[in-house]
Amino acid sequence: MDTKLNFSSDYTRAAHPAILSRLADTAELSMPGYGTDPICESAKNKIRAACNCPDAEVFFLTGGTQMNATVIDSILRSYQGVIAADTGHISTHEAGAIEFGGHKVLTIPHSAHTAPGKLHPADVARYVETYANDANHDHMVMPGMVYISQPTEYGTLYTLDELNELSNICHANALSLYVDGARLAYALASPANDVSLEDLARLCDAFYIGGTKCGALFGEALVIPRPNYIPHFFTIMKQHGALLAKGWLLGLQFDVLFTDGLYENVGRTALGYASEIQAAIKSAELPLYFESPTNQLFVVLNNRQREYLESKVDISFWEQLDESRVVMRIATSWSTAREDVYKLLEILAGMK
Amino acid sequence: MDTKLNFSSDYTRAAHPAILSRLADTAELSMPGYGTDPICESAKNKIRAACNCPDAEVFFLTGGTQMNATVIDSILRSYQGVIAADTGHISTHEAGAIEFGGHKVLTIPHSAHTAPGKLHPADVARYVETYANDANHDHMVMPGMVYISQPTEYGTLYTLDELNELSNICHANALSLYVDGARLAYALASPANDVSLEDLARLCDAFYIGGTKCGALFGEALVIPRPNYIPHFFTIMKQHGALLAKGWLLGLQFDVLFTDGLYENVGRTALGYASEIQAAIKSAELPLYFESPTNQLFVVLNNRQREYLESKVDISFWEQLDESRVVMRIATSWSTAREDVYKLLEILAGMK
Amino acid sequence: MDTKLNFSSDYTRAAHPAILSRLADTAELSMPGYGTDPICESAKNKIRAACNCPDAEVFFLTGGTQMNATVIDSILRSYQGVIAADTGHISTHEAGAIEFGGHKVLTIPHSAHTAPGKLHPADVARYVETYANDANHDHMVMPGMVYISQPTEYGTLYTLDELNELSNICHANALSLYVDGARLAYALASPANDVSLEDLARLCDAFYIGGTKCGALFGEALVIPRPNYIPHFFTIMKQHGALLAKGWLLGLQFDVLFTDGLYENVGRTALGYASEIQAAIKSAELPLYFESPTNQLFVVLNNRQREYLESKVDISFWEQLDESRVVMRIATSWSTAREDVYKLLEILAGMK
Amino acid sequence: MDTKLNFSSDYTRAAHPAILSRLADTAELSMPGYGTDPICESAKNKIRAACNCPDAEVFFLTGGTQMNATVIDSILRSYQGVIAADTGHISTHEAGAIEFGGHKVLTIPHSAHTAPGKLHPADVARYVETYANDANHDHMVMPGMVYISQPTEYGTLYTLDELNELSNICHANALSLYVDGARLAYALASPANDVSLEDLARLCDAFYIGGTKCGALFGEALVIPRPNYIPHFFTIMKQHGALLAKGWLLGLQFDVLFTDGLYENVGRTALGYASEIQAAIKSAELPLYFESPTNQLFVVLNNRQREYLESKVDISFWEQLDESRVVMRIATSWSTAREDVYKLLEILAGMK
Repeated sequence: MDTKLNFSSDYTRAAHPAILSRLADTAELSMPGYGTDPICESAKNKIRAACNCPDAEVFFLTGGTQMNATVIDSILRSYQGVIAADTGHISTHEAGAIEFGGHKVLTIPHSAHTAPGKLHPADVARYVETYANDANHDHMVMPGMVYISQPTEYGTLYTLDELNELSNICHANALSLYVDGARLAYALASPANDVSLEDLARLCDAFYIGGTKCGALFGEALVIPRPNYIPHFFTIMKQHGALLAKGWLLGLQFDVLFTDGLYENVGRTALGYASEIQAAIKSAELPLYFESPTNQLFVVLNNRQREYLESKVDISFWEQLDESRVVMRIATSWSTAREDVYKLLEILAGMK
Repeated sequence: MDTKLNFSSDYTRAAHPAILSRLADTAELSMPGYGTDPICESAKNKIRAACNCPDAEVFFLTGGTQMNATVIDSILRSYQGVIAADTGHISTHEAGAIEFGGHKVLTIPHSAHTAPGKLHPADVARYVETYANDANHDHMVMPGMVYISQPTEYGTLYTLDELNELSNICHANALSLYVDGARLAYALASPANDVSLEDLARLCDAFYIGGTKCGALFGEALVIPRPNYIPHFFTIMKQHGALLAKGWLLGLQFDVLFTDGLYENVGRTALGYASEIQAAIKSAELPLYFESPTNQLFVVLNNRQREYLESKVDISFWEQLDESRVVMRIATSWSTAREDVYKLLEILAGMK
Repeated sequence: MDTKLNFSSDYTRAAHPAILSRLADTAELSMPGYGTDPICESAKNKIRAACNCPDAEVFFLTGGTQMNATVIDSILRSYQGVIAADTGHISTHEAGAIEFGGHKVLTIPHSAHTAPGKLHPADVARYVETYANDANHDHMVMPGMVYISQPTEYGTLYTLDELNELSNICHANALSLYVDGARLAYALASPANDVSLEDLARLCDAFYIGGTKCGALFGEALVIPRPNYIPHFFTIMKQHGALLAKGWLLGLQFDVLFTDGLYENVGRTALGYASEIQAAIKSAELPLYFESPTNQLFVVLNNRQREYLESKVDISFWEQLDESRVVMRIATSWSTAREDVYKLLEILAGMK
Repeated sequence: MDTKLNFSSDYTRAAHPAILSRLADTAELSMPGYGTDPICESAKNKIRAACNCPDAEVFFLTGGTQMNATVIDSILRSYQGVIAADTGHISTHEAGAIEFGGHKVLTIPHSAHTAPGKLHPADVARYVETYANDANHDHMVMPGMVYISQPTEYGTLYTLDELNELSNICHANALSLYVDGARLAYALASPANDVSLEDLARLCDAFYIGGTKCGALFGEALVIPRPNYIPHFFTIMKQHGALLAKGWLLGLQFDVLFTDGLYENVGRTALGYASEIQAAIKSAELPLYFESPTNQLFVVLNNRQREYLESKVDISFWEQLDESRVVMRIATSWSTAREDVYKLLEILAGMK
């Protein structure tokens, strides 16, 4: 349909062929409702195995904002808020879904220059300590949870050391640690990454494995490593409008994604291409906003360069840097085609 | 997979073959996000045409509870509640989703014997009048909307006269009228029905056309006949976690359902079989709980009869009538197979 | 100012003279804010002593609806609702304050004829059992608390046996038991009453001792018998706008009310007069709606009688019984004057 | 009771003698409930006159957080948030009361160095423009209101020009303008102030006149200049637990405060003393954090100076400036005594 090159985002395509083909085969299926079916059970077991966490509870929801709002509301008490980077998805692009549930997002500035999108463990520790020492803290929102995304909204990664540190700070201060993994496949596949699913299950109280941006049509898988950490989560999902009648639709997609390492594979493809493109940007002597370890690349362009590149390729506007320069995002995904990458590399080479 | 006869509900099967096949063809699709795509636009236009309401706004959400919670919260002001039958889905089986949004469900008893599941227009009028005349009404929840379902949770139907009357009462009293059409296909196809999509668009402020139980994998289509009746509904959807990233998935399904009259067809099949089964129940001299005009049939069985029937067919427990008798529900759907109906008719004949 | 006899309600007058005089003496007072002062501490200790519950936590709030909304929201989890009589104050006259906090009020019909305003323990047990046995209960609001008022909105009383039974049912089913004591002084002073403050502290998880209708200018005292039953209640009060800057204002009033048995005394005066008036109603052969054990009396009048009585005395309309008869409420209070009672008795005698 | 000098805050004392004496005279009063009484009506009329706004609606609530939460929730639509300085009371010290109502506080940094506590009109304009131009703004919280406090939490003042500018920006962008006047008396009495009650009524959509910190025992008066700007505010108050049964208690206090210019007088006393103390701080060569135009003074002390001053006077810790220096707040009020000021001036003189 669209014949222009498209590197604008990682959710413009339907789903991995293996998922589409499995879906096409469901004409004769008859399944009980609300995720109480054997396909979901199979998918859950594969995820438990991948996380090396046999007791984990796994739930499937339909999207990231829904997931974040439902999980955060279910863990926090009414008087608690959630700490997040000011660039965190829940702080910026969820239309107040967390506040709709009654909770404040307690923002800490990200490190725009050194680690865009990331929450410094030291900053979290300081925040919690300042709150504890404030004589008026009974009049303030109590931090009850830390929210991070892996990779972040800027495609950056927390290291295992940082995750360990965050986990220690959280658990020493009775905070829950929750990780938004909307693009987790692209973290897991990054050569720069040293945080495994098993690490997440060991260090977090809840995290989700993104499907929508990682090869599925839609759907996200919540992992709660310690069973009953969130009592009655099923009812909470229902109350939040997050319980799909034909829950097996979600189970089926994750069952495919967690068969034969497909989830890591979809990430690996995207990362390989991203790495080639990032190299081409450097060769073309176009400045990177920062060096990206995952599938989202950020390049600084002047107006003429932007106009030229956008005439050839769909990419995303990210930020106005100053009067004459913008940051643009180039995203690869599980669906990026070899030939499209070649074309983009050529275009970039021509911009030198 | 399941070889026992299954008449337990209308959402145990995947989707109409036309939808599965269209989905299987999406491998090469590239679409913008959040329902801003041409497939959604096409589906919306077909729905507008079917409703004879060219200016209607149409939005696609993923499920019924999500739809009800989002629409009701978006229309009501903070101090208003929604009038519903005490058997209404929002009163009973949505885990408090309406109250989560801050609104009381103001229940009126349904007419268990004469019109199960239905709200009498006269009862609504009396409720509103009593509220208006109560000297303390400023200390009470103000009714701001009437919620009905068509067909109701019992499969019964509002007549056009009743809908007219409800619409008049609502609009004379500054109430919105909202219709939950989770199973609307089965109403539209019923010989007993005289309410068209066009009537709904003319008489209601919002209503939804159910997909999940009517041939789709998932999805419901909200119709707002008068544009801008709910300002910023897109953002409200986002805030409620009800905005699907790949919104075209929903548009695609409704595009198929509203092509060549498929939506009415899926209802017609189910209704034809339901009628045959209801006749067979009567022939078998098994008492009906009441005569049903749609795809859900309610039969009264003693314990021995129940045990026998359940050994042959999956059906749903509905209600304990007294010590020795229960009401059981038999549901047909768009996916009911001719041969399964034959088998059920035989079983019923043997129960005489 | 108003020279007509006034038996319309128990909150038309300012406060007991002992409170007014103590307030007039505060010109030189300097107190820390938010209830952290020695006057509040003194009042709390007197209440703890009166309840024979030395470890109880006590908090002062400004009104009944605020109290109910804050306490119920603080105890319930997001997916839970509160069981109440359909005549309960939270069900009818709090403008949806409980739903504003996200919780459903799960109503059970009161026994209009045998015990108006009361929740039968057996009905609560049946409700909880029905919920537990319902195969769909994960899609329903989970009952998390029972709310009763003592005396009820009709002035009736729970017996100690009933309270014991409710407490047992609640605690066997993981429900909290909360008692709204807006008019508690009138219960404690009733000859028909066998439930003491000590019983309430032993059997409930939280209850409040009403001030506004029982001799104070304003204010209600929450008693939480087991410390830390509601963690961070101070912050929850703040979040609900229920934390008074000069909290000592409330402490001072309860300090007076719980000195030298004043709280019981204010009830006793009202009850004595109520009993005389109720006797006069019977002598006048005016039908009682039911025999009341506390300070609210309910008399059935025809239109002529109503007109006559209202020309002489301010009383409250309660209910339209049928075309020609109404139920009217006559209320005494801590402030009822001897001479006003005489006048009313004469008027009633003249109606024979 | 407390014999140490106390300049710690402006709400440690009871109320102006004129209020205490009027309260002591209420023993024989009989008033209808919920603010529907003639005393409230009288107070409202005096406030309307003082604002030169005869059509204004006036409501009395019991405290500032309650007021802010109730007003903000009543004006905003569910998908809207409120813009405030990051130092605004609603951003910091209301325990998430705004978020409890479902709304995000959209913070803009105050100008710590040039105008502490204040929101720059230009910053508000930029925020609104950035929102409007953001291609993703439908996924973001829509700003629906601007909240400022006059004086601010730092005691600084908006000029009439600034208020005009804010009002223009708001109304050009469909935002409401709401002013928190918890300490309004101290603004009105400041020689530096050029914003009158009449200006507030002309330029704002809602503002409140603080009582608790300005001579009353408790209570705040909301002014809504254009009638019906907030429909059903009475019911909204009830829903928020903000409706006092004996509303006349609040009316009475404002009736006194708005008789014979008392409200301005209480401010004037405090401001005169504050000015003397600020001069003494300068004479003592103690650095001011900034020059304050109202009753809150901010002085920078090293640890030794702090220890010394706190041994003589109760003052408030405000901020840790660096390792060795703190900012401390000295507050005067309507109740500050001449002789206490003399003693403080002497102490300060001795610190040179």
